[in-house]
Amino acid sequence: MSNGIRIQASELLAFSRGLLTAAGMPEDRAGLVAQALVAANLRAVDSHGVQLILHYLPDLRAGFMNVATDGRIVSETGTTMVLDGEDGVGHWIARNACDHAIRLATGSGLGMVTVRNSSHIGMAAFWAQRMVERGQIGLAFTNATPLVAPWQGAEKRLSTNPICMAVPGGRRPAWLLDMATTTVAMGKIIKAVHKGEETLPSGWALDSRGRPTTSTAAAQQGFLMPLGGYKGYGLAMMVEILCSVLSGGRMGPLTGDPREGKGPLGYSQCFLAIDVGRFVPVEEFGRRMDVLIDMMKSAAPAEGYDEVLVAGEPEWRAEELRRREGIPIDAGVWEKLVAEANGMKVAAPCGVDF
Amino acid sequence: MSNGIRIQASELLAFSRGLLTAAGMPEDRAGLVAQALVAANLRAVDSHGVQLILHYLPDLRAGFMNVATDGRIVSETGTTMVLDGEDGVGHWIARNACDHAIRLATGSGLGMVTVRNSSHIGMAAFWAQRMVERGQIGLAFTNATPLVAPWQGAEKRLSTNPICMAVPGGRRPAWLLDMATTTVAMGKIIKAVHKGEETLPSGWALDSRGRPTTSTAAAQQGFLMPLGGYKGYGLAMMVEILCSVLSGGRMGPLTGDPREGKGPLGYSQCFLAIDVGRFVPVEEFGRRMDVLIDMMKSAAPAEGYDEVLVAGEPEWRAEELRRREGIPIDAGVWEKLVAEANGMKVAAPCGVDF
Repeated sequence: MSNGIRIQASELLAFSRGLLTAAGMPEDRAGLVAQALVAANLRAVDSHGVQLILHYLPDLRAGFMNVATDGRIVSETGTTMVLDGEDGVGHWIARNACDHAIRLATGSGLGMVTVRNSSHIGMAAFWAQRMVERGQIGLAFTNATPLVAPWQGAEKRLSTNPICMAVPGGRRPAWLLDMATTTVAMGKIIKAVHKGEETLPSGWALDSRGRPTTSTAAAQQGFLMPLGGYKGYGLAMMVEILCSVLSGGRMGPLTGDPREGKGPLGYSQCFLAIDVGRFVPVEEFGRRMDVLIDMMKSAAPAEGYDEVLVAGEPEWRAEELRRREGIPIDAGVWEKLVAEANGMKVAAPCGVDF
Repeated sequence: MSNGIRIQASELLAFSRGLLTAAGMPEDRAGLVAQALVAANLRAVDSHGVQLILHYLPDLRAGFMNVATDGRIVSETGTTMVLDGEDGVGHWIARNACDHAIRLATGSGLGMVTVRNSSHIGMAAFWAQRMVERGQIGLAFTNATPLVAPWQGAEKRLSTNPICMAVPGGRRPAWLLDMATTTVAMGKIIKAVHKGEETLPSGWALDSRGRPTTSTAAAQQGFLMPLGGYKGYGLAMMVEILCSVLSGGRMGPLTGDPREGKGPLGYSQCFLAIDVGRFVPVEEFGRRMDVLIDMMKSAAPAEGYDEVLVAGEPEWRAEELRRREGIPIDAGVWEKLVAEANGMKVAAPCGVDF
């Protein structure tokens, strides 16, 4: 058995779009979702790549997604908007919210759109990067199903509530931070389970009684560790407030659980666009970003490292490589995608074993 | 010898104002600085309390602070402003920037003010809280003298660049996060040195070659650990971009060092005010904050803890206690403040030994 297949981005895009449309998603939404998922795979953020289709299909079939809605504008001022996602396709709602934020920032300097009754929006970086393409600093936040206990607590209340910011560069691609507010994302624990690793690095997880643990088994029954303890919990709350409290949406503990399959997820998001030209001329801003990044990269490397990197740099390198050599998809994920394709009579591309 | 003295907030305020005016700071600036420092002591954030006067006095005497300026507005749109602090009194410049952000957000929904050529602004929470008092969500960021190496690096490039957000509450006081983007602030390492502790908890520091260390001596020669490694480095860069890149100010590595005493510090800040009423009616927002906080506090405590707290809660409790029982000041700090007072013929209050 091979480790998986390697496939060109364009083929993976067409296949993904085909799976989603076959399950009832309109062409325009399916095209956008496929584009966002493949963008994640290109960046080697495989947790937010095409494997998510396996989670989206059951919700689509169950009718938990209102595939027709664009979302409804609840309120709008010159800089702010509340958008009701009406349980639409998360990526489609995020795109609309993002584009509203860009429009508001273009007109007013700043644009902040909060979204309620949305769904899973994939990789936050895709949306922040959309704002960067318009010459703006983009910030994107989302809540989701609880996985994390508040610090000093032993019951799930918050998700890994990510913080994402993308910043237009000068001669370099965008500086791009997209991080869960836990030490690691859930995917890393699941990977350790699949590999049969009995211990985890310290600082990753808590057991079911909220005590730090390095046991993979105990972590599965327990919780992800907020980044640095109480600070990560504080950052997750910051995200929760900007998303659900400020949109009138369902707060973390009240969102749906995709594993239960009982109804719409009802996630909330917040998108903030900043028109850099209002502060500093755009070209000067780019030059300043270059200088700042040069200052970081000029630091002597720590023992055991060759160079200092900046946020987004590993992902840009991965993208360059994967555009050239294709995207590797794990055998387990690929088999499930092909099984879905066979069930819906969608042709699967072959790819190349690796 | 006593551990120090305990003194009422009002007495400490008058004493602090007296020290600053005696060293040449105008009454209005001195009053504001004293108020901000005592507010930090009340919240038990003693690192940002009256001990900072010992750092401000030399800069005042050396003429590194332009005590007369209000700062100069470089550019202003309906939502954005760049303010040049003209090396003024940091707190005074921060107050002006904050009030501009509040005014812009009141008029437009959002207000973002970036500041260059500012100075030390004390506790960021004081400024975010100022925005909360006007019913707005307040965010405050500042850069400062480099203490931290970029992740995978072994040379100082960034400061502990804090993230601060304060949010109006319903029946509770503001939710208030004010955190360095390192695992701990420098003060905790210094405290361990003063106490003669040879080892530090893991995750606090790196040695001079950028390797994780638990040796207090090695940490003194090395660096503070960014929160969770590369994530804390990313958050510090986020703050640096919002402050210095977006204001046209001096980037982290180019700021002054107070220990060198060679000139103005030239720090940069960013203040963002969000008018919650544009998103959700203010009373409903407060109720929603109460519900969210109740949800956190309802989680079963982890083993070894009695309750779940939210950001700002320990500090509000400290403030209640210290308003009643007085503020404890360490003997070492107090002796130095009294020596300064004697040198300038300022009367020092007695306080009560503890």
